[in-house]
Amino acid sequence: MQIIKIFNEEVADNSYDIIIDTSALNILLKELKKTPFGNKYAIITDDTIKQIHGESLLNTMKKEGLDCVLLSFKSGEQSKNMQTFEYLHENLLEKCIDRKSCIIALGGGVVGDIAGFVAGTYMRGINYIQIPTTLLAQVDSSIGGKTAIDLKNSKNMCGIFYQPKRVYIDVSLLKTLPKKEIINGLVEIIKHAIISDEDFFVFLETNIKDILSRENNLLIRTIQKSCEIKAEIVMNDPHEENLRRILNYGHTIAHALETLTGYKKYTHGEAVAIGMAVEGRISNLMGWLKEDELSRQNKLLEKTGANLTPPKIDIDLIIKELSRDKKAISGKVYFALPEHIGVMKCIDGSYGITVPVNIVRNALREFV
Amino acid sequence: MQIIKIFNEEVADNSYDIIIDTSALNILLKELKKTPFGNKYAIITDDTIKQIHGESLLNTMKKEGLDCVLLSFKSGEQSKNMQTFEYLHENLLEKCIDRKSCIIALGGGVVGDIAGFVAGTYMRGINYIQIPTTLLAQVDSSIGGKTAIDLKNSKNMCGIFYQPKRVYIDVSLLKTLPKKEIINGLVEIIKHAIISDEDFFVFLETNIKDILSRENNLLIRTIQKSCEIKAEIVMNDPHEENLRRILNYGHTIAHALETLTGYKKYTHGEAVAIGMAVEGRISNLMGWLKEDELSRQNKLLEKTGANLTPPKIDIDLIIKELSRDKKAISGKVYFALPEHIGVMKCIDGSYGITVPVNIVRNALREFV
Repeated sequence: MQIIKIFNEEVADNSYDIIIDTSALNILLKELKKTPFGNKYAIITDDTIKQIHGESLLNTMKKEGLDCVLLSFKSGEQSKNMQTFEYLHENLLEKCIDRKSCIIALGGGVVGDIAGFVAGTYMRGINYIQIPTTLLAQVDSSIGGKTAIDLKNSKNMCGIFYQPKRVYIDVSLLKTLPKKEIINGLVEIIKHAIISDEDFFVFLETNIKDILSRENNLLIRTIQKSCEIKAEIVMNDPHEENLRRILNYGHTIAHALETLTGYKKYTHGEAVAIGMAVEGRISNLMGWLKEDELSRQNKLLEKTGANLTPPKIDIDLIIKELSRDKKAISGKVYFALPEHIGVMKCIDGSYGITVPVNIVRNALREFV
Repeated sequence: MQIIKIFNEEVADNSYDIIIDTSALNILLKELKKTPFGNKYAIITDDTIKQIHGESLLNTMKKEGLDCVLLSFKSGEQSKNMQTFEYLHENLLEKCIDRKSCIIALGGGVVGDIAGFVAGTYMRGINYIQIPTTLLAQVDSSIGGKTAIDLKNSKNMCGIFYQPKRVYIDVSLLKTLPKKEIINGLVEIIKHAIISDEDFFVFLETNIKDILSRENNLLIRTIQKSCEIKAEIVMNDPHEENLRRILNYGHTIAHALETLTGYKKYTHGEAVAIGMAVEGRISNLMGWLKEDELSRQNKLLEKTGANLTPPKIDIDLIIKELSRDKKAISGKVYFALPEHIGVMKCIDGSYGITVPVNIVRNALREFV
């Protein structure tokens, strides 16, 4: 027997900056002219954002003398599939995008997820820049490097970790956003507060009204804090081996609800809000999160406009769906659960906690 | 303007062992029982290998008490596409493969490329083991971490770098291999000798007959040396920034020929053999590789059984196709060219060399 040892210790510096401003798009243009990220740019967006921001960005970039093309696809989660993935690859090739070119992901979470996955796989990976256009994408998808597409019955099952070269968060893009999109983002922001920063939670309780009225400076402060919390967690556990699991608070239940309703009944934020209410109740039933803390969480969630009405879905179906979760291991379901507002429960060094199925059942029954 | 700095320096140890033996499959079984690579195994193979080796491996693993399933797809390069990629993902999910499971890629280059890409993207990456069943896959795909699928008109355009946890090279699998598959592998082995080891080239000149008669110990020595050469190159440049380009010797022309003939006229080895003859001639016309060295290369290639007849394709078409190569940058074509047998030409620190189009034309005209 011959053995060849392949030594392959790789050190990669995938650090990047997130720029938050009321005119981040202007900053982007200036920066691209000064220090280009590619010999050519491909803006990837959806048909809606193409109309609102895409074509004007394309034209401005061209006017500035930057070689640039735009690819778009039908808006909505149902486009986050293998067909769109293939369509984008084929069209990048057709438009002569090469390994020194750069993709610009302009849009919400769907665009960010699929454009990031395309960037990470086109010719085995080229540069990309993110311009998240929804509050949720700004505080969530801009950090962590998760990219993915959905399989037929399961979300985000096919993807990789791939970091952007820079993220431009332009809060002026939020002005025209529908209210439910603001709820989507705020639910995630509240989650960030609950999993690691009680002071930030109090800040949100105090300022929720003015945040909802989209006051610029308050938006910038809120987004910055939320991004910093997520960044701190992700930097300490880039590949979700333990700590990063706490970001999953509310999401285990949310994913099951979204799957069972075909991603049609709830927006992601609504599903996560219900998920947090249920998982908060699970924690409470386990003897951790206090009744008044759970109530403060739910009140703040409701103030954003999120609706915490129990879903009319058979509890057995939900329980069954949970075991198919991407994070389930050998059929066992793991939850990330708050011990208090700002502190997550850790058992024997692990933030992934298994819970008796009866507790999950009871929590689903009486979750508010 | 607020700036958040996301620090993301990642250190990953992706080292692994390649086991070369006349009964590597038995070693695999013993090792899996002792130190499992997963809670469950999914063998991915093609329909041909499934019949020859797949089902028996599946049954043996089951008998040994290992939880194991098998997925297969239609044999051939035409299966290395988005549809097979999606099919495999959907079926892994259906068979309850989770993020602690392990994929076993059993087959030639096509199986290795697509199964590796599936392993690297399923739930954002799970373990995988390679069992290359062709000589080419044993000396080529088992090192370097390149995984990919083809787009409609272009090979390997969509993929990632992803390392296996272990490679088992069983030379007894080569006994039943068709002659043209042996040629495929030997052409790549000769390329490894030319790009970095004159002694190995002489060893091949001396022993080519006995290698062709598949003498076990000679096969093991040849495969080991070839793997060591490739490993040395890849370890020094994992993401193909410079040195690794020398592995591309013969491949720039080969890819153009394969694309223009729809991957039907030539096996990969035949195309690379012609590619080495043409690119060797390019080097000779540039004043580097001497006439007698070129002749020694071509003689050894022909001794394997490779046919160096000039392709009947319009030279302009080949020239045009070259600029669409994945490694072309802004339309410029780069070649890796030998200076001598065992030494590649390096200009200003770069192994990617641009060549006047007339020289490419002339070389194509008179390449042997």
